[in-house]
Amino acid sequence: MTSKRLLVELYYDVISPFSYLCFEALCRYRRLWNMELALKPFFLGGIMRETGNMPPAMVPNRGLYMMKDLSRLSRYYQVPLKIPQEFMEWIVSSSTVNAQRFLCAVQVEEPKFVEPVTRAFYQRLFGEQKEIMSLECIPEVAHTAGVPEDVIKKCLDSMKSGEIKGILKKHTEEALENGAFGAPTMVAHINGKKEMFFGQDRLHLLAYEAGKPWNGPFPENNKL
Amino acid sequence: MTSKRLLVELYYDVISPFSYLCFEALCRYRRLWNMELALKPFFLGGIMRETGNMPPAMVPNRGLYMMKDLSRLSRYYQVPLKIPQEFMEWIVSSSTVNAQRFLCAVQVEEPKFVEPVTRAFYQRLFGEQKEIMSLECIPEVAHTAGVPEDVIKKCLDSMKSGEIKGILKKHTEEALENGAFGAPTMVAHINGKKEMFFGQDRLHLLAYEAGKPWNGPFPENNKL
Repeated sequence: MTSKRLLVELYYDVISPFSYLCFEALCRYRRLWNMELALKPFFLGGIMRETGNMPPAMVPNRGLYMMKDLSRLSRYYQVPLKIPQEFMEWIVSSSTVNAQRFLCAVQVEEPKFVEPVTRAFYQRLFGEQKEIMSLECIPEVAHTAGVPEDVIKKCLDSMKSGEIKGILKKHTEEALENGAFGAPTMVAHINGKKEMFFGQDRLHLLAYEAGKPWNGPFPENNKL
Repeated sequence: MTSKRLLVELYYDVISPFSYLCFEALCRYRRLWNMELALKPFFLGGIMRETGNMPPAMVPNRGLYMMKDLSRLSRYYQVPLKIPQEFMEWIVSSSTVNAQRFLCAVQVEEPKFVEPVTRAFYQRLFGEQKEIMSLECIPEVAHTAGVPEDVIKKCLDSMKSGEIKGILKKHTEEALENGAFGAPTMVAHINGKKEMFFGQDRLHLLAYEAGKPWNGPFPENNKL
């Protein structure tokens, strides 16, 4: 009678390497968990500012460890993930607001492309170590993701609108209301209740709370 | 010919709830991983000061989430773990230096009691929500752990010595040299190399790197 379909909202920003892993893992689990995955691009800069949180790399030993951790996780998840040398420089001098607004525009114009465009941003940043913050890179990213030229053009236009800016703001506020303080933030709807989980390293707990199997990074063959 | 025995050093402080989970999980895996678990009490206050790290609860949304996270992990690991109401007060007004020095004294006088005394400190703090920072609580904790009265007395004496103070300092410095910035910090000796892992949530990665099975919090029955 009642549907067992699990709804998980993923709040993410394309600057966050841990969000990349979480995004890929959730996409892989969609079938096994019978899950509706709602992708919610938000603005991590705003989350950090509003909560007074700091990127972990501000503590030198933590930053060094994070590099090692990400390289281990990259092998474990088999997701190509290498932090560009200029990463900290880019974070300090620029922001992902363009990329995140473009994702919101894609969500309004052609929602089926949000997943491939998200992946294309991540692959450019962490697979090819190229910046993803300029307006100029967006058409190339969207093209790589298979978005038709007319849709790209429409999204580049609409991302400047109050409506799209408002969607990004709304996602960010929604995440804060759910207790977010960083990325990735997941909100799982379990037995009529919203449960927030922070970090790709809590996917096993999300599974546990939702009564779903957790088979590590490869749900279908349980090889790890 | 060569032994496949895995050596893991666990740097921990009895104030850290995540160290409690890590400690219990590693004790459970000792047999399956054919692991020598070296318990290394260190001083978390010193680690935080030296690295400029901050307890996560300093960011309000992070603190709130940590409570939820710990309560989920407590169920998942089946380790009774509830943060006392006065926890932050105790951290600000006092330190675990007595408890950690006593553990170092036990390690010198009767090493076999380090594990039960560690567990007794954790159970008092997170099971019974009682303070573990005063000198006065130590005989009771040690008694609960089954340490004979004469050994308790000997350790209470020797913990004031330069030798024991020096051991706690050495463990803390060792951890820092291995890149620690918080607790728990694990150093696994894998193929002749030291590999540092931070957090109970990286046990699956330690297993992966060491070529050992990861069966979740219950190694022997793989029920989660």
